[in-house]
Formats: sequence, C-alpha cells, structure tokens
Amino acid sequence: MAQLANRQILLHARPNGVPKPSDFRLEHASVPQPAEGQILLRTIYLSLDPYMRGRMNDGPSYATPVGLGEVMTGGTVSRVEASRHPAFKTGDLVAGMSGWQDYALSDGRDLTPLDGIPQPSLALSLFGMPGFTAYHGLLNIGQPQPGEMVVVAAATGAVGSVVGQIAKLKGARAIGIAGGADKCHYAVSVLGFDACIDHRAPDFAEQLAAVTPNGIDVYFENVGGAVFDAVLPRLTLGARVPVCGMIAHYNDTQLPPGPNRVPLLMRHILTQRLHVEGFIIFDHFTTGFADFLRDMGQWVKQGKVMMREEFIDGLEHAPKGLIDLLAGKNFGKVVVRVGTP
Amino acid sequence: MAQLANRQILLHARPNGVPKPSDFRLEHASVPQPAEGQILLRTIYLSLDPYMRGRMNDGPSYATPVGLGEVMTGGTVSRVEASRHPAFKTGDLVAGMSGWQDYALSDGRDLTPLDGIPQPSLALSLFGMPGFTAYHGLLNIGQPQPGEMVVVAAATGAVGSVVGQIAKLKGARAIGIAGGADKCHYAVSVLGFDACIDHRAPDFAEQLAAVTPNGIDVYFENVGGAVFDAVLPRLTLGARVPVCGMIAHYNDTQLPPGPNRVPLLMRHILTQRLHVEGFIIFDHFTTGFADFLRDMGQWVKQGKVMMREEFIDGLEHAPKGLIDLLAGKNFGKVVVRVGTP
Repeated sequence: MAQLANRQILLHARPNGVPKPSDFRLEHASVPQPAEGQILLRTIYLSLDPYMRGRMNDGPSYATPVGLGEVMTGGTVSRVEASRHPAFKTGDLVAGMSGWQDYALSDGRDLTPLDGIPQPSLALSLFGMPGFTAYHGLLNIGQPQPGEMVVVAAATGAVGSVVGQIAKLKGARAIGIAGGADKCHYAVSVLGFDACIDHRAPDFAEQLAAVTPNGIDVYFENVGGAVFDAVLPRLTLGARVPVCGMIAHYNDTQLPPGPNRVPLLMRHILTQRLHVEGFIIFDHFTTGFADFLRDMGQWVKQGKVMMREEFIDGLEHAPKGLIDLLAGKNFGKVVVRVGTP
Repeated sequence: MAQLANRQILLHARPNGVPKPSDFRLEHASVPQPAEGQILLRTIYLSLDPYMRGRMNDGPSYATPVGLGEVMTGGTVSRVEASRHPAFKTGDLVAGMSGWQDYALSDGRDLTPLDGIPQPSLALSLFGMPGFTAYHGLLNIGQPQPGEMVVVAAATGAVGSVVGQIAKLKGARAIGIAGGADKCHYAVSVLGFDACIDHRAPDFAEQLAAVTPNGIDVYFENVGGAVFDAVLPRLTLGARVPVCGMIAHYNDTQLPPGPNRVPLLMRHILTQRLHVEGFIIFDHFTTGFADFLRDMGQWVKQGKVMMREEFIDGLEHAPKGLIDLLAGKNFGKVVVRVGTP
C-alpha cells in the first residue's frame, strides 16, 4: 500500500464572502507515481496570490473554478523527485503549477527550469506571474512616458511594488497607495516611490490630490473600491488604466449600495478620452515572458528592482495566509514554505 | 442705425434636467460687419446634435460651456454674404460653426468650402462631424474584423446609422438598437443592418441575446443606461467599446439609484479583457478628417452609405428640435433650415 504522505489542501466549501478556514480541508493522499513522460515534483514553495479567491467561486470567470474537493490551484517551486521525462532529472529545481500539496505530477509542459537562480522563491514574484503582470500591464497598456504620473495601490505587494519600481526606472513619477504607515514608509524609503498614501486615512482623497497636482496619467488598477473612486476624478486627458484586479471586491457577495456610479465612470471615460483595458497575464506568457525575464534580470542585477518576501512556514498555514492576504495583512510577496529545499 | 435682422437663439437659463423652451431666448441683433480678413456668413442649415446638451451645463467638461446670454453653439452650412478675406468670395458655400443665428463673422480658419457638393446639408452629417465620429470610433478604436458582431444604439441616428453601414461594408455583422418598430424596420430594410431591436420592448435583453448568439465583439457606445447594461454581459473576450456619448444620461440631474454597478463593469473589463476607450471627435480633425472624406466620398458614390435627413423649417424651432432629439423623437439626422440657399 502506498504511503499516505502527500498532504493536500482541498477546497471544502465555496466561501460566502470572506473565506473561512473551514472552507479548506487538509487531506493525506498517496504520493503519485510518474508514468512514462511524467515527472514527480515535490513542492518547496507555494505562491499565494489574490486571484486564488476567484477560483474558489463557482460560475463563469476567465478560468475554470477549483471544484469542491479538488486541490487548490497555485504556482509553485519544486524539486524533481523522480523523472520519466528526458528533459528533467532528479534534483532539478523547477517552477510550475503543482497547487497546494506536497507532491504533484507534470508532463513537463508547464515547467520552467530554475537552475542557477540564486533565490528560487523569486520565481513566484519578481521572475514570475506577479512581476510579469506588473511589467506587461504597466508597459504595454499603461505606457508611462518620462515625467508622467503613475499611481498604483497595494504598493508594497508583489505586483504593486514592481509597478512602482518599473515606473521610476522608466523616468515616470510613482505614487503608491498602501494600508498603514509602515508600508507607506517602506514604499518610499526602500522601493523608491515618490510618495505613498495610506488608504485608511480619513482624508485619503485629499492627500492623493495633494501629491498628484497635475493629475494621474497611468492608474494601474488592482484594487477597485474607494481607491478607484478617488483616482477617477484625477485622471488626465488620455490617461491609461490597465485593469489587473480588484481585490477590494473579491469577497463581495453583492454589489455595493447606490447610487450607480457607472454613468459617472463612463462620463469620465468619454470626456477625458480614457483608455481602460483589462488583461489576464496568463494570455501573454507565450508572447512576452522571455522579453520580461531578460529585462527583469538586468534590472535586478543593476539593483533597480527588488522584492520583499514574507514567508509562511508549513502548508497547513496556507489557508490563513490567503485569508490574511485578501485582508491586506501581508507585507510583500507571500510565499508558503512547504518543503525543505 | 443697423438693421436688427440677425435672429439669434441664446442660452437663457441652464436646464435642470430636460431642457425646456424657456431655457432658450430668441433675440434680434444687428448684422455684424466684417473687418479686414473676415467673412460675413449667412446661415442656411444648422445641425442639431446631442453634444449640445452638454454645452448648456456649467462646470468642467471637454469643451467650454455656452455662457448665459450667449448664442448657442452649432455646426452650420452658410453662404458667404460679404468677404474681406482673399480665400473666400461672395456666394461661396461653406461649412463652419456659426451657431444658432442668421449671421456670423469668421476669420476663415474654421471654414470648409462646399463648392460642387450636390447636397450641402450632408456636410453636417455624412461628410461632417457625425460621419467622422462613426468612422473614427468604429475603425480606429472598434476595429471590427470580418465576421465579427458590431452593435450600435440610436441606429437610425446620424452617427449610429453610419456605424452600421461601415461595419457592413467592412464585412462585419451589424445589430442596431432603436426606439420603435418604424426605425427598426428602416435600419434593416434600408440601412442594411442584420437585425434591429427595439429598446422599449420589455424583453429587450432577451431579444439582444437571441440576435447575438456568439456575443458582441464591438459595442459602439453612444447611449448608456439600460442598453449598456444589456450589452455588457454579452461582450466577447477582447471586445472593444469605443465610447462616443451617453445620451441616456445627458438630462440626468443625479446619479441613478443603486446598486453601484461599477464593480460589475470593472469585473467584466478584467475577465473579458475589454478595451474601453473614450474619444472626442474634435481632437481628430487635423489628423484624420481628410482620409475620412476620401473614404466616405467613395462609399457614398458606390451607394454603400446613405443618410436620412429630417428637416425642421425655421431657426425659431431649433429649441424644440433639440429637446425632441434628446428624447429620441428624431428619425435620422436633424437639420434646421435657417435661410434660403
């Protein structure tokens, strides 16, 4: 009988609003055996990201939801434990999508080799999906010009921190929005934002106006809610709004109360000639990921872009990690340490 | 003493909601005399357009509002009555922006010669601002591909009718939305739309779904309101939404009641990777108007694009004409006959 050594965190119930620990379930399964052409992976790091909340819902979205009783989806850094695939050998370090579990099989198509990378967990942030999200959304949709004003919320998070740093190295000005004085201080003193506003401040909108006297040329949208309401009237003629997420609404169970602000939004889009465009980064890996890796590699080497990581020890704490992430309690990229390197 | 022969319609009061006849005032002024370099114009046709409602409001918009007691702004076709400008001579026919009055002066910079054009009133629709609006918004932002589905409201109006006809000649399919069976019949049988839905029908959203079984690839937004609500869930992956106007809201005095549908709109923008972009056609005359005139001239000559005009006789009826236009009572392009050709 196979050893039940594969810990898995499954979706136990679909959350109604804010996810609860009881929406997840820890089970022990047997370690799977690779067939010809397959690789057995052992998870070392698991990435926690806001998009995971969407996968816990049923109903149509851009990706198939996680089924009830299925392993939660997620990006991972893994060690090859056994390989029946010619391109991978035991001991290789790879980035993939093993999900919330100790062991997974892969046919190799979704794996990126990480050999020689000094800090492999960064494959889940700077050199992975969050970094690429910031890069693609800011440069291809936002298109900041030197001297223009870029604003991004969740400014110390995995995506927002990279948006600000790339904006600066492209010669734009960058204003961050974050929750609390510590994060704001970090955004300015370490990440190099020109200013950072605490969205919890009662005079948040006035502070935002004060640091964007000539308006906002690029707003990288990843939160929605009250932040977007404060940004909207400050968008300049021809401003660009790449829409990457709206974490403020992921736990919503119904639409917010009125009035209906859609006509106001559309009037701004019209009179200010705004360009608002949504994107899902998974569309762009085949066309843009190589360029991104090359640019990001140079910037990191030059010390122009960095990433703060917050590690959580133990797969069993991943549910609380995601719940806290959705509540804005994290500070930097959240990575779960699942196994020993 | 100068003859008080210049009838002018002035903005008398800023409307609160739907404009009333008493928001306008007819006055008689003296006919102005051209100085050196100026031209005296006599208005023959005055264009009525939805954007005029916005100019009656105070407060910031993309254009300076009409001041209280000032002549209402508007596009015109005029005869040169007297010229002290080397490029224009008495009797020339020109398009310009004389506004709601019999006579106006110009320095020539805003005038387009119309000599040899068989139907000069079309300079206010097919060959003017509305036609250019349809052309630029549909082709440069909407970018319909052969076989794609284009939807436009106010489908028999000056802009919407051209959107549909250009969509068809580019190989796309075109669905119109209009108010009433007569307009819908006309949109299909004369303008060549594939179908046209009456937005007043109680099952409007279901009818729209039935004629767009594979969704909507381009929605040319000129109305807002309930039409936009019905279109939003049908937009396909990567759909384009050029935002040209929102006539359903021009008379609003406050935002509609809740819920606040902005998060729903932004979620669609994100998950469907929508490209929503506003434009104001006055930005594009210097760069795109010549190309437009060339293309439109060919299409009209080939019988591929036409325009239905609705004439109102007498400058004094212009206020009622605009009020009716904003209520959707017009059928085609509304032109006021101000003077004898």
